[in-house]
Amino acid sequence: MRIGVIGQSGEIAEPVARLAEEVGREIGNRGFVLLTGGTTGVMEWASRGCKSAGGLVVGILPGDETAVANQYVDIPITTGFGFDYRSLVLVHSSDVLIMVSGGNGTLGELSAAYLNQRPVVVVEPTGGWAARVREVAYDGKFLDHRKTMELGFAQTSEEALDMAVRLIQKR
Amino acid sequence: MRIGVIGQSGEIAEPVARLAEEVGREIGNRGFVLLTGGTTGVMEWASRGCKSAGGLVVGILPGDETAVANQYVDIPITTGFGFDYRSLVLVHSSDVLIMVSGGNGTLGELSAAYLNQRPVVVVEPTGGWAARVREVAYDGKFLDHRKTMELGFAQTSEEALDMAVRLIQKR
Amino acid sequence: MRIGVIGQSGEIAEPVARLAEEVGREIGNRGFVLLTGGTTGVMEWASRGCKSAGGLVVGILPGDETAVANQYVDIPITTGFGFDYRSLVLVHSSDVLIMVSGGNGTLGELSAAYLNQRPVVVVEPTGGWAARVREVAYDGKFLDHRKTMELGFAQTSEEALDMAVRLIQKR
Amino acid sequence: MRIGVIGQSGEIAEPVARLAEEVGREIGNRGFVLLTGGTTGVMEWASRGCKSAGGLVVGILPGDETAVANQYVDIPITTGFGFDYRSLVLVHSSDVLIMVSGGNGTLGELSAAYLNQRPVVVVEPTGGWAARVREVAYDGKFLDHRKTMELGFAQTSEEALDMAVRLIQKR
Repeated sequence: MRIGVIGQSGEIAEPVARLAEEVGREIGNRGFVLLTGGTTGVMEWASRGCKSAGGLVVGILPGDETAVANQYVDIPITTGFGFDYRSLVLVHSSDVLIMVSGGNGTLGELSAAYLNQRPVVVVEPTGGWAARVREVAYDGKFLDHRKTMELGFAQTSEEALDMAVRLIQKR
Repeated sequence: MRIGVIGQSGEIAEPVARLAEEVGREIGNRGFVLLTGGTTGVMEWASRGCKSAGGLVVGILPGDETAVANQYVDIPITTGFGFDYRSLVLVHSSDVLIMVSGGNGTLGELSAAYLNQRPVVVVEPTGGWAARVREVAYDGKFLDHRKTMELGFAQTSEEALDMAVRLIQKR
Repeated sequence: MRIGVIGQSGEIAEPVARLAEEVGREIGNRGFVLLTGGTTGVMEWASRGCKSAGGLVVGILPGDETAVANQYVDIPITTGFGFDYRSLVLVHSSDVLIMVSGGNGTLGELSAAYLNQRPVVVVEPTGGWAARVREVAYDGKFLDHRKTMELGFAQTSEEALDMAVRLIQKR
Repeated sequence: MRIGVIGQSGEIAEPVARLAEEVGREIGNRGFVLLTGGTTGVMEWASRGCKSAGGLVVGILPGDETAVANQYVDIPITTGFGFDYRSLVLVHSSDVLIMVSGGNGTLGELSAAYLNQRPVVVVEPTGGWAARVREVAYDGKFLDHRKTMELGFAQTSEEALDMAVRLIQKR
């Protein structure tokens, strides 16, 4: 099972980092593969957690250089075509996505997941768009009036993984 | 000048259709090129308006078939790689974007525009995400805490075009 | 009808430039739309010919900047994702392709056209891969043993356009 | 180190299959990661060899379905955007490429590797384009007159891997 973790890049608050790391650790513990955008912030902390649990980490990178990958990436996929296009490869390649905090780039990934019917679990107590999605969504769980896929919400890393597994099994 | 119009596909309410058509007509009247995703709903009505004013319409299509293009598309670009990837080509190829109504696909295009620093004018009285953006945005005009690009808001097609022109000239 | 012209970028010999220009002029004269990669060499000369005949020129560019487009491009499509990815958009968006001279990039476009079943007319007396294709192809006209699409060969711009039109009508 | 293996899909002759498998086994034995297009023919045999040596196999797939992946793929990257676009992701993500036999699709990947300056080792005694490249190349080793990157040629799997390693270390 391939689990994509999307979320805030760059500097992130310490509790968010810890939660991202826990999500990654749960992924590794359960023997799943972690996919991220391969760089900093939530991507790095989740990767660190996954590695610490002996898991495998794939980083879908924007450019041709592996040097921008964080140190926990086992398999760098250097797409060479930029941040936004690579985000779509990440979404298409994930069986389910877990969203931790997140700025505009993460919002775009959330939208792409919804479009491509990849289930998403939003870890709410992490700030950024993760903390805002429920409030702004249609009926608190859809990204438009078509209501084609229900978003999931979780408060802890364990809950997030349990839900992710259920959502994949349902398909 | 290349103006992208993004918005709700499929069936749209009559007042939204009329506003989309007006936006297209303004684009044609001012001698600009209109780019859309090439299919139905807002894309079709905007294209119809642009053609009626003698303008040129480019449709950035998801598949290989020109048959899905609406009848007002002069230049079909059949990217052949799906809805989400083609949306990025549309965003990259627009000097400015005008958003009319919009479901989840449009939300993704809005996010991509913000990421790539393409100015966006949101025509608010058209429902969908266009009617919700101001409320959900950071400070009513940014898509994340980095505040890298201010979104514009307009109430009429004329106001939208005036603002679009100003936003391009500023760059 | 959308005709893609692929070929050598950068500096090209004077007779090749003249032939590329003639191909472009024929495209404009017949009321077709010309698509190229938008930059220099064959792309520029073909575009110049097409414009001189009042035709419309689309340039599918690698980056986000329209500044690299040659002066004859009416519609720059700034894909923003690099030379090779944009070449695929060019191929997918062409109903037929005409190949004039060409280095390795053009060879890749020829291969992509064959893969996607876009007919190709090779203008042989222009050097580069155009002058070599017949010799290296399987049975002088296929790009592999599957023999899924016959390449066409022409000696003049007029012959190239006549053949291009026939190849599209056959489909 | 990420080694891409490109080559004939579908049914392949028994000696070619055996050589592809040997190439894969060498990759696994040396602790490298194998990347392929993830489906049949050379891709499957190389993956089988890599797995038998305990190596890790990444498959860059054209669609959204992992079901088309051969049984030896550990990490399916389901790009969702078609055969030709995914081939570019494969090329960009490989530090070096080894070419075994190959039809038109492989020719396109060879060209993309040359364009993006990814070293290529052609295993000549495998038929298809691998057996023809030296003959059709400029000076027997370049893909156009610019001569920007020398192709390598090998007769055995061991020779191919030795050369691949040297080519990467040179960069």
